[in-house]
Amino acid sequence: MFGEILENVRCQSPLIHNITNYVTVNDCANILLACNASPIMADELEDALEITALCDGLNINIGTLNSRTIPAMFAAGKRANELGHPVVLDPVGAGASALRTQTALDLLNEVDFTVVRGNISEIRTLAAGSGKTHGVDASEAEKIHEETLEKTIAFARDLAKEAQTIIAITGPVDIISNDTRTFVIRNGRPEMASITGTGCQLSALTAAFIAANPRQPLEAVAAAVCATGVCGELAWKRMSELDGNSSYRNFIIDAMYRLTPKQLEQGARYEVR
Amino acid sequence: MFGEILENVRCQSPLIHNITNYVTVNDCANILLACNASPIMADELEDALEITALCDGLNINIGTLNSRTIPAMFAAGKRANELGHPVVLDPVGAGASALRTQTALDLLNEVDFTVVRGNISEIRTLAAGSGKTHGVDASEAEKIHEETLEKTIAFARDLAKEAQTIIAITGPVDIISNDTRTFVIRNGRPEMASITGTGCQLSALTAAFIAANPRQPLEAVAAAVCATGVCGELAWKRMSELDGNSSYRNFIIDAMYRLTPKQLEQGARYEVR
Amino acid sequence: MFGEILENVRCQSPLIHNITNYVTVNDCANILLACNASPIMADELEDALEITALCDGLNINIGTLNSRTIPAMFAAGKRANELGHPVVLDPVGAGASALRTQTALDLLNEVDFTVVRGNISEIRTLAAGSGKTHGVDASEAEKIHEETLEKTIAFARDLAKEAQTIIAITGPVDIISNDTRTFVIRNGRPEMASITGTGCQLSALTAAFIAANPRQPLEAVAAAVCATGVCGELAWKRMSELDGNSSYRNFIIDAMYRLTPKQLEQGARYEVR
Repeated sequence: MFGEILENVRCQSPLIHNITNYVTVNDCANILLACNASPIMADELEDALEITALCDGLNINIGTLNSRTIPAMFAAGKRANELGHPVVLDPVGAGASALRTQTALDLLNEVDFTVVRGNISEIRTLAAGSGKTHGVDASEAEKIHEETLEKTIAFARDLAKEAQTIIAITGPVDIISNDTRTFVIRNGRPEMASITGTGCQLSALTAAFIAANPRQPLEAVAAAVCATGVCGELAWKRMSELDGNSSYRNFIIDAMYRLTPKQLEQGARYEVR
Repeated sequence: MFGEILENVRCQSPLIHNITNYVTVNDCANILLACNASPIMADELEDALEITALCDGLNINIGTLNSRTIPAMFAAGKRANELGHPVVLDPVGAGASALRTQTALDLLNEVDFTVVRGNISEIRTLAAGSGKTHGVDASEAEKIHEETLEKTIAFARDLAKEAQTIIAITGPVDIISNDTRTFVIRNGRPEMASITGTGCQLSALTAAFIAANPRQPLEAVAAAVCATGVCGELAWKRMSELDGNSSYRNFIIDAMYRLTPKQLEQGARYEVR
Repeated sequence: MFGEILENVRCQSPLIHNITNYVTVNDCANILLACNASPIMADELEDALEITALCDGLNINIGTLNSRTIPAMFAAGKRANELGHPVVLDPVGAGASALRTQTALDLLNEVDFTVVRGNISEIRTLAAGSGKTHGVDASEAEKIHEETLEKTIAFARDLAKEAQTIIAITGPVDIISNDTRTFVIRNGRPEMASITGTGCQLSALTAAFIAANPRQPLEAVAAAVCATGVCGELAWKRMSELDGNSSYRNFIIDAMYRLTPKQLEQGARYEVR
């Protein structure tokens, strides 16, 4: 199933509008191109409205949000909703500042997101309506492990139901859930956390995967998460004892460029609950 | 000829002011450094005016343009004109939104550009005074192929004459033209389109090549286009079966760092019409 | 000593707030992660104040400064001072424009910096209260060489005393000084100047090194400078005849990811005066 979803992305080459942070924006563009999707970035209100209309999907990432780009996020999100395009929210750093938390909550209220993808700390912040996260990475205490899995699945389903969206919580174990079904994914490597922007890249990719597979959004999100994890594993195998996080970043994008449906099918480690 | 033009860039180390998008800005800086040129980025009106005066050339790229940076583009362009510096326009996404199209057209009206470099869709938009492009990449139907070459050369010459600038249309075949002479270039590889920013890098490079070769701007633009294509070919030869677009990006910049005049002379595939 | 300082960074994983330019921001994030520090970027006034409070150190880099981010620099700097966090100033391009020079001088007046790190041209501009630099790179005439070393050490000490901060002047020879003691460092390679952002990366790293070693800030800055230089040397050893500045950038970050306390101790070449 995931192989076909990937193939759809490569064949349809969806055009994805990204309103995203300037830290990892280049990697977001290259990971989209690695799947034969097309990236376009536009964060000025006037520009963003038209660009969104031209695209097949929208990825809103609130890292390095500011007074100029926030209005573009809302307007583009609403326009994408009107057009029936998939919309992804990556609430980077929600819980780290009131501006980030409130912007993410307001976006959730005013825009219909197809999926919200973040780490457990960010997603808990959105569920609670407030929170305290340690920077842009998940706090150690909150990370999903086998012991806390059942509770986190229930939490994700409840939030998916309440917010009427797919919830994607990524970390050592990934939980992708709507209100009735949940993919539990165990791909990837811990060293991926030592690269900036693997989460941002996944959010951009998720928009492309849904755009090319609109009839099975839950599966598309799960496929994007598995693909990223599988590429993290394949890339790690290339690492020499001199390579570090910068080469690892390149190798992961390279792996996505080369990823075949067969590799994805064989490498995906998930269960559906 | 192209070898000497490259050597002039390496010897003179021109300082290039870039007002450019935040997606590919790092690559623009590194490709300039690869040629021993010096990059500086400044997009705030007050800052940009002084920085431009300090530099040897200006590269204006309208990707991720916004209300704060647009005035800096106009002011820096005019200042560079007063100082006789070469000025490059890269109309990223012209045709994709009214803001981009109108900004590019207004820039063309108010600033004397030494060269306008874009894909065929963007350049057609500027010629028509309006247009519809598919995101930031050229539409498949418009791409220059052997069958449409003669017509596109005539189009480029007419536009060069009307706009009083060199027109550089890059794609599978590149056309670099003033109102009387045209370089038709057949370097590069199709896989370069799977890297974000090869066009942006070329525009930055073009500014450096003209700045170091002010008496032969048409040849300088053609040399920059050939150099980029030759590096794309050299870099492709290094690619292993595990490498993808991220390593390819690095290898192209690496190839520019190592490119010798002899390699450029021998690798350049062009005709003059 | 430097080995232990590096180990403290890896163990304590300090969270560093960066208000920095969009050219090299991704590299700054990855070099921090390479040392197991955590980066967070926030440049909007409202956001920056809260983010700084959450962090262990602040890095202010004025490259691509603008009217929106300048107020965030001042406010975050003052908040970090109140909280006793280390604050680094990287005066990119001071001397190249009045806006950059004045912003750097005003920041020095209103914020207590733990360290100011720049090239000799930038630091001379700050000392003189004005200046003329060639872009963002040090002018050839001013670069520190053995002949001018004694005078430059005296200059650095005087400025450190006057400005009540550590002065870090980096170049072919690095001078790290407070008002009484000076580290003279001879690590690194000249080819590092052909990568954009090695200086920006060092400033981010410096914030992390001080944050994890608050009781010996001078040694922490010297350790960060030595670590960067040693990584530049280790990375150069990996370079094949096809590799250029883009791969070199990756290899330096990779080397930091792998750098052991023993490698740093053995590779560091410095004297204390």
